[in-house]
Formats: sequence, C-alpha cells, structure tokens
Amino acid sequence: MAESERSQAEVPRRHFLKQGVVMLGASGLTAASGKVAEAFEPPETPAWMKSPGAGMSEYGNPSKYEVNVKRTAIASRPGTTGSGASRTPLEALDGMITPSGLHFERHHSGVPDIEPDKHRLLVHGMVRRSLVFTVEALLRYPRVSRIHFLECSGNSGVMYNPAPPNLTAGQTHGLVSCSEWTGVPLRVLLEEAGIEPGAQWILAEGADAAAMSRSIPMAKAMDDALLALFQNGERLRPENGYPVRLFLPGYEGNMSVKWLRRLKVVSTPTMTKDETSRYTDLQADGKALMFTYPMEVKSLITRPSHGLTLRGSGLHEISGIAWSGNGTIAKVEVSTDGGKTWAAAPLATPVLPRAITSFHLPWKWSGSPTVLKSRAIDTTGAVQPERGTFIADHGNNAIFHYNAIQAWSVQANGEVKHVYA
Amino acid sequence: MAESERSQAEVPRRHFLKQGVVMLGASGLTAASGKVAEAFEPPETPAWMKSPGAGMSEYGNPSKYEVNVKRTAIASRPGTTGSGASRTPLEALDGMITPSGLHFERHHSGVPDIEPDKHRLLVHGMVRRSLVFTVEALLRYPRVSRIHFLECSGNSGVMYNPAPPNLTAGQTHGLVSCSEWTGVPLRVLLEEAGIEPGAQWILAEGADAAAMSRSIPMAKAMDDALLALFQNGERLRPENGYPVRLFLPGYEGNMSVKWLRRLKVVSTPTMTKDETSRYTDLQADGKALMFTYPMEVKSLITRPSHGLTLRGSGLHEISGIAWSGNGTIAKVEVSTDGGKTWAAAPLATPVLPRAITSFHLPWKWSGSPTVLKSRAIDTTGAVQPERGTFIADHGNNAIFHYNAIQAWSVQANGEVKHVYA
Repeated sequence: MAESERSQAEVPRRHFLKQGVVMLGASGLTAASGKVAEAFEPPETPAWMKSPGAGMSEYGNPSKYEVNVKRTAIASRPGTTGSGASRTPLEALDGMITPSGLHFERHHSGVPDIEPDKHRLLVHGMVRRSLVFTVEALLRYPRVSRIHFLECSGNSGVMYNPAPPNLTAGQTHGLVSCSEWTGVPLRVLLEEAGIEPGAQWILAEGADAAAMSRSIPMAKAMDDALLALFQNGERLRPENGYPVRLFLPGYEGNMSVKWLRRLKVVSTPTMTKDETSRYTDLQADGKALMFTYPMEVKSLITRPSHGLTLRGSGLHEISGIAWSGNGTIAKVEVSTDGGKTWAAAPLATPVLPRAITSFHLPWKWSGSPTVLKSRAIDTTGAVQPERGTFIADHGNNAIFHYNAIQAWSVQANGEVKHVYA
Repeated sequence: MAESERSQAEVPRRHFLKQGVVMLGASGLTAASGKVAEAFEPPETPAWMKSPGAGMSEYGNPSKYEVNVKRTAIASRPGTTGSGASRTPLEALDGMITPSGLHFERHHSGVPDIEPDKHRLLVHGMVRRSLVFTVEALLRYPRVSRIHFLECSGNSGVMYNPAPPNLTAGQTHGLVSCSEWTGVPLRVLLEEAGIEPGAQWILAEGADAAAMSRSIPMAKAMDDALLALFQNGERLRPENGYPVRLFLPGYEGNMSVKWLRRLKVVSTPTMTKDETSRYTDLQADGKALMFTYPMEVKSLITRPSHGLTLRGSGLHEISGIAWSGNGTIAKVEVSTDGGKTWAAAPLATPVLPRAITSFHLPWKWSGSPTVLKSRAIDTTGAVQPERGTFIADHGNNAIFHYNAIQAWSVQANGEVKHVYA
C-alpha cells in the first residue's frame, strides 16, 4: 500500500474529537453557556422525559422525523397506468438489508391486488405431469433463506446521458435493494413435475396485467432459483410479488418474475416481448445484446453524495455499498483525489455472495475541491470500470447494465455534485 | 445417526407430490372439472390480470391479506401508561431478519417522542473530558453493521407457570427478534473521552420518562457494544430507541438501553431500580441472581405450534428458530416422538454469532398424536435443557431467563397445544 493510500485509511481517532462534539468544562459547552454542568445530570432534562410516552402498536412505522426518507417514484409513462419505477433512498440508509417498505419498485402494469387463496401456480410444458399449486401447498414445502440483492437492469441508466444528472444517489442508482428472501428451491418443484429430455428453458409468467414474462435457463432454475414467499421475515410485500415471486440471485431484476402464476418448461427461449422489445442492450456498434443475465460488479459512495452537503472541513465518513451478480465482493477501493490514489475500504461483515456489502472509511477533508470515487472488485476478478472506458466499450445508446464508477465532485462550499471524471 | 433419526430427516421428495398440489390430466383437476386444460393457459385468468394494478408508493406496507400478522400487545399495567410489552408473531414469520414493524416492544413508560435535533448524549464520570454528542455528530463517526437477536429477559416467562399456557408461539416466546444493527462502536467514543484508571462500569440511561438505567461492565462496552442508529437499513423505529440506542449483543434486552442520553463511567455497579427491584432472577432456594447478562442457548419450533392446525397426515414442514447470547448455534435437533429420538435439522445460512438461526425439516406425520420438540446446542457446548431439569434447577418463582425446551402436543385432529412433557 502506497504512503498516499495509507494516509487516507489510517485516521487517528483523536481527529474525531473536535468534529461536532462539545466538550464540557473550561473550553466547551459550559464555558459558552456560563454554567458548570452538574456531574450527575446531562445539560437539560428534555420535555419527553417529563410525561409517559405513547403505548404499544401492532405494527410499527418509522419516526415522523424520517418522513422524507422515502422512495422516489418516477411517474407512470404517458398512456399507461402503474408502469414505472420507484427508487430506494440509498443515501439515507446504511447496512446490508433494505427495509421492505423502501425496496425499489418496477412495475409494467401496476401492482395486482391478488387474493392469496385464489392464486394458483401452474407448472406445465415438457414435464411428466403438470401441477397446480396453491399458496398453502407451497408453504408446506421445505424452505431456505438467503440474503441477496435485487437490481433492475435499468438501474443507473441516466448515467448513459452525455451530461451528468442532477439527482441524488438514490434517484440515480436506487433500483437496487437487498433483502433476506425465504422460499422453496425451484429445483424441488421441477423434480416433482419431472423434467423431460431436451427441456432447456422455462417460461416464467407473472399474474399482473402486463403478464410479465421471461425465459429462464434451466441451469439457473436447477441451481439457486427460489420461489420466494417471505421477504425480511414476513410475507412478500404486494409491490414485490405477493403472494409468490421467482427469485434468481444475481440476475437482472425483471427476470425474478413477480406474482408468479406459470412456469412452462420448454426447449428454447420463448422470445417474449419482455426479452425482445425490451431488456436488450443496444451497443455502440448498433447490435443489441440479448439474455444478459447477471448484474455486473458495481459500487457506489452513498455518503457524501449529491444533495448531502459537507459541513466544513475535517473528519467525515465515506460510506457506500457494493455488489456483484457474479459472486462475492472481494475488495472496495476508495479514492479521494479523483482516482490518482486508492485505499481499500473496510467491508461490513458478513460479506455474502450476491448481496449488498457496505463499506465505511473515515476521511479528513482539507476543504479543497476534490472528486470521490469507489471501485469494486469481485471474487471472479472483475473490476468495476471507469465511465469513460465503459462508454467507449458499450456506447451511450443503451439504458441497461450500467456499472461504471460513480464520481462525486466535492465543492469548496461542501456541496456535492455528479461529475463525469 | 440412528435409523430412527435418519428416517425423520430423509423424506423423499415424491412424498410432496400429493400434499396440496393438484395434478392436471386424467386423475387431477381437469378430470374433476370436466375440462382438459389448454396447454398454454393456466386453469383460469384471474380478475387481477384484466386491468392495470395500483401505482407506486413512497413507503410500502404488507398486503391487506396479512393484516392479522401483527404484534400482540399485552395491556399496560394498571396505574401506568405505556408500560408493557408487545410480541413478535414468530409463527407467521420465517428467516433470520424480523421486519422492524414486528420487532417486539418492551417499554417502562411508553415511547418518547424525541426530536432528533434536540437529543443529546452525555458521556461523563471517570473520563478525562466529558463530551456531549448531537445525533448529527454521532452520524459522522465510522459505523459497523451486525446482525444480532435481541431478547427480553422476561421472554417465555409464562412457562414458569405450573400449567401450560393457552398461547401461540409468538405470544409465549415472541419477546425475541433479530435485526441488522448499524452504528458506532461504543469503544470509539469511550476512547475519545479517555477512561480514567479504576473505571470498571458504565451507567447507561434512557431518555424515556422511566429513565431506564442499567450498569454495563466495561469489558462489554469495550468489546462489541454499539451505539445503534440504524435498524434493518433505516433509522431506528421510535419503539426501538430512535434516535440512538445502546446495543449489547447477546445480553438481556433491557440492558440495550433505548433513547440513550447518558453514559456515566464509574467504578462499581450503580444499583439502579432496574437491576435491583427488577431484572433479578429469584431462584428455588430463595436467593436472587443479579447481573445475569447473556441470554442462554434456546430454540423453538414455530410451525407447527399452538393455533396452527395440521391439515391431515402426510408431509409437513417443521420449522423454527434458535439463538444463543453466548455464541453461535452449532446444532439444532428435532424430535417428533416426544424426545425419544432426535434428528439434526438443517440450519439456514449464514449462521451468525448472537443471531437468530432458522431451521427447516420435512416431517411425514402418521396422523397419530405425538409431541414435537427442538433442542439447540451452541458453540460453547451449552445444551438447551428440558423443562423439568430447568425448573428443578431454578424453581418456578422467577420470570426471567427461561430457556427450556418447548414441547408441542399434536392431537389426532391436527390441533397443536402447549404441553409440559
């Protein structure tokens, strides 16, 4: 590790002392206020200690003081109802788990109001016997739990634009979230039905009005695909596929078909509208990539980021998230000088495959303008590319699978902006 | 593994087939309804596919069909306001994470309505310099994230009663929940303040009207204690200590003081009301144990459990949770014959220290009455005791630290009841 790298990572704790804390005694709060603090009492007794608080509740909600921590919903497309996306406010969150109420949404014809007792899942096609499952039947199968991210392939799509966007971290990159998913391995149900020779694909269809449909490779279905019934401990939220969704770890989000009603075992891809007219990646040479499943290695500094202003020079925390659809995060490097030098950021544990990994690094800001970047490397050795390299390789006619390094420009006044650097 | 054990664990998948699924074809649904299913269509197109669904939302909620999945609030004690507990509906959940809205509550004088900008945390006593932190100041310190359970020491206290309770799993044992907690290591702030020689304890005080207070051993404070600011990704819920709480992994819940306003470094335990008149464990010999910090190794079958009726013999899933305040779950064994034979249950991964570990095991029920039990063993070698042994050792004058094996009696009609067996 170069000297310049070590100096970023090793910030002595004593630097914290004068950053936003008040010392009692001659040089601190009591001097300013003209009183000496009584040793056994805090500076004042707040109003909320003087009378009993609220009682218990059946289902809790965030504090009213956090009401601005919410998903940013982009309006539905003209002429459609319920087609659009809402994004996780990444800059306000911390850790691996996204609270289910803030998990991003992406709907093609809104959220269906499904009565669980009337929902059915059909397994048919190239199987020895067709099966229809009720939700209650699915709940009798053995379940597994796994913590995985889900990312819409259109996440960060605005970063293909020639000019940097005027958006927060969440509004730009918030089509990624991470949950504990619990459900039945798809393999178990396919083995029940009995796969016929030559079957290589599965058509998965949702019970929304768009009948969202994708072709799933049989190898993925037999590997780690889940029929997810629970998200973060409780049953799925309606906007995330209640009562049951497909979940394909690491793959682009639209393939994890929500409100799953049908699995048809077939020999070839079915070329649905959702994998031909959409969810293909137009490249610089005019050709389009199809069936681009895994979401590539990616990271993002969520704080500081656009909309969060640094209050003065001195010690700040740089924090963010990293993930890879191809494996586990091996390393996240942070640069506070626009990419000239890089320091490895400590990763929050456990570091799990195909899950969000958060990182935190103390940073002493001189007060001069600079550029912050993070760069993730996964266990396959894949390195998150610089934006210039990514655009040179892929062009900017696409809206999917953007995974380039995010650069934040810190101004002398503490404001933080998107910059292409 | 004995033959009787293996027969429980190895349930062939073909047993699943006739349990709640419907086969299409001559012997299945289409025969019964008189129609042959069209190969490319499920049995029917549901109403919710025929028109667009609801639009996006800023903060999501569970399905209206899950409205009965809620905390059970025990009414406040007579003469008090907001003193009581509400319990997590464990039997309706699955996985390691408890959704924050269903995390158990335990308040001694209700939930204070704290304005985060006006909240202060004082660190004083045997320190070189007293410090007062705003929440904004705390948010500038480097954070760590960890997944840990929290259990009220009064959890399962009703099991000390001479007669088995008539309660669900959650109503009996639901004062345990598990979250990802993110915050500042307490050690960092104590090192800032500078601990003076001879300081061995810390008084932690909450900003509720009860001024909930406990003495914390310095060794724990310097080891893995957190000042938690985030729970499951978002800021703490009010009922879990917003804007900041102490979090002591593995220790009885009341020590993780919510709404933390004061840490006083001292040389001896401070003998607060909350560790003398309460939270001591009266033993069979009339003596009371004080300062019984870690919550002992424990497990529980959550399904089947009281209130959930088995719909017929055949294949069912046995699932549950295990945890230990002293380490990591090494093994969970399940008995379906009242404790005569035991089979190891597969544990959901990752198995994390001081976190809930869920387990799932298929079980083919003959239809005859029987008793189900689970038994957890942790990495210290501690084994969850039978109830008879536990009561013989501790008596039944206590209400705290009950961790004995839970027995569920399955009746011939599929009903499940508490039983002391």
